[in-house]
Amino acid sequence: MAEKLNIGLDVAGGDFAPGCNLDGVVLALSEYGDRLHLTLFGSESVIREGLSQHSISPDSVTVVDAPEVIEMGESPMKALLSKPNSSIAVGFKYLKEGKIDGFASAGSTGAMFGGAVVSLGTVIENIRPCLMTLVPKPSGRDGIILDIGASADSKPENLYQFAILGSAFAEHISGFQNPRVGLINIGEEPEKGNELVKATYKLMADTKDFNFVGNVEGHDIFRDKADVYVCNGFTGNIIVKLSESWYHMCRKFGFNNEYLEKFNFENQGGSPVLGVNGAVVIGHGISNGKAIKNMIGLTMNVVNNKLSQRIKEALSRNESSEE
Amino acid sequence: MAEKLNIGLDVAGGDFAPGCNLDGVVLALSEYGDRLHLTLFGSESVIREGLSQHSISPDSVTVVDAPEVIEMGESPMKALLSKPNSSIAVGFKYLKEGKIDGFASAGSTGAMFGGAVVSLGTVIENIRPCLMTLVPKPSGRDGIILDIGASADSKPENLYQFAILGSAFAEHISGFQNPRVGLINIGEEPEKGNELVKATYKLMADTKDFNFVGNVEGHDIFRDKADVYVCNGFTGNIIVKLSESWYHMCRKFGFNNEYLEKFNFENQGGSPVLGVNGAVVIGHGISNGKAIKNMIGLTMNVVNNKLSQRIKEALSRNESSEE
Repeated sequence: MAEKLNIGLDVAGGDFAPGCNLDGVVLALSEYGDRLHLTLFGSESVIREGLSQHSISPDSVTVVDAPEVIEMGESPMKALLSKPNSSIAVGFKYLKEGKIDGFASAGSTGAMFGGAVVSLGTVIENIRPCLMTLVPKPSGRDGIILDIGASADSKPENLYQFAILGSAFAEHISGFQNPRVGLINIGEEPEKGNELVKATYKLMADTKDFNFVGNVEGHDIFRDKADVYVCNGFTGNIIVKLSESWYHMCRKFGFNNEYLEKFNFENQGGSPVLGVNGAVVIGHGISNGKAIKNMIGLTMNVVNNKLSQRIKEALSRNESSEE
Repeated sequence: MAEKLNIGLDVAGGDFAPGCNLDGVVLALSEYGDRLHLTLFGSESVIREGLSQHSISPDSVTVVDAPEVIEMGESPMKALLSKPNSSIAVGFKYLKEGKIDGFASAGSTGAMFGGAVVSLGTVIENIRPCLMTLVPKPSGRDGIILDIGASADSKPENLYQFAILGSAFAEHISGFQNPRVGLINIGEEPEKGNELVKATYKLMADTKDFNFVGNVEGHDIFRDKADVYVCNGFTGNIIVKLSESWYHMCRKFGFNNEYLEKFNFENQGGSPVLGVNGAVVIGHGISNGKAIKNMIGLTMNVVNNKLSQRIKEALSRNESSEE
């Protein structure tokens, strides 16, 4: 029997913590139990009480006492420093020391992202890690979009690296061979767009680092034109939030089908932090039990497929070809 | 009886010209006939034949022979210069000379926008005209968004002016008192966002030129948080095309209701060019008869409510308060 993965979960992170987090623990152990061991970070007394309420055997998890909580409104980096016993700070310590294989939280995105970058470091120098999300498509071949908000301003070189990060995810997690990279723009022609995108197009045009298929527009995102949609975090954030809004309007109108349900964040699990030395997944703040379970599942996937290592290899190839 | 408005229509503009354009003429004369006179620009022989096929009495319209056509692929400004007898060039000549009250076309957006700016001039110096579209809302109080792609890069001062242009439309065309202006961003807090939006927020924060209500996010666009959504043309273009895509997906899935149908471009009529000395409306390239009719109706509305003049007054107030 293969060794179990040891995934760390922030029990204090998220709007409905710790209740929904422990609901997620129950679901995850039931679905992945034979391959999964969970290490839970949070106030030990709260966790122990929750385990008992949820009828989870204390032997099936490891509990690490980390009683401080980073609140959503706090300055993330300050909070990480001033609260070394917070669930997020201790989780990253365990991950860095190799005591867990991956770490997941539905808590402060800023603290999770910043903590990942600072405590684990980036896979190579001069890279800007980013966040991504899945792009459901009617065709069934779901794409990914990145960055979705880790940075608000980007340079052409950043977008170029995002393409490499996204291609690694599409290849090793989604399982697509030679994934197609599209650059989000306001026209298809190379000369269209703002200065950032025009300069990025030139960088990408003849690349051998990934499979660049050109510009894609707002109405192409759900079409089968690309697998990896690259944009700056400002644009990506608005695309994702606008689509969330459409999903919610559709549900409110009573529209529903299997495709639409893919936009339900519960089914997505969250975003891995791409470009850091370790498997880190950030879930939605309003995660319920199912979302927490899927966040844990995505973290297992990121660990199993050695995503960080694959990204490091892809970026190193790019670096050495530049020399 | 009030004098009829004389609206110029480019019969050669659009993917389905001249057939659908003349369908639109029939619908417009039937709906607005007592208040509307149409001046048709295009090849006179083609128009005369079309009028006869559509059983439109030649007396009910004015036909202006302008046989050259600006194709969608052409460089807009070059085409305007090299084709002085094109329907668009002649239309602008008539508008500038006051022979028509407004001009509408579903032809080349670039030629229509560039032609409007060059031939009519901007309402004040140092303003960047822009394009807008309606934002349907479940609440029924539809907003507008601008710029949607006239410029790909903007400065904070441009976004500030867009807010004034949009407020004038919201007040004088939509009929909202003291319309609320939201700045599209990736977070609500003033310190959030990219450099452009952070600098724009500072400009807008204490303004008396319009009713600034702060940052709005991607998921706020269909909520009742603002009436005027301000963003750069890159962001606006992607928001509009992504929403078009959602509308089309919903229709394909068989979802439909009255609200959703507001996203059908046929019902919108097009975008006025905001900030130029004259009433100019650009329709969607794939306009059918109903869309052409609504484009004519919107042009009448822009003329009747003296939108250009109102915008000029609002911008002049801003200029003089700066001195």
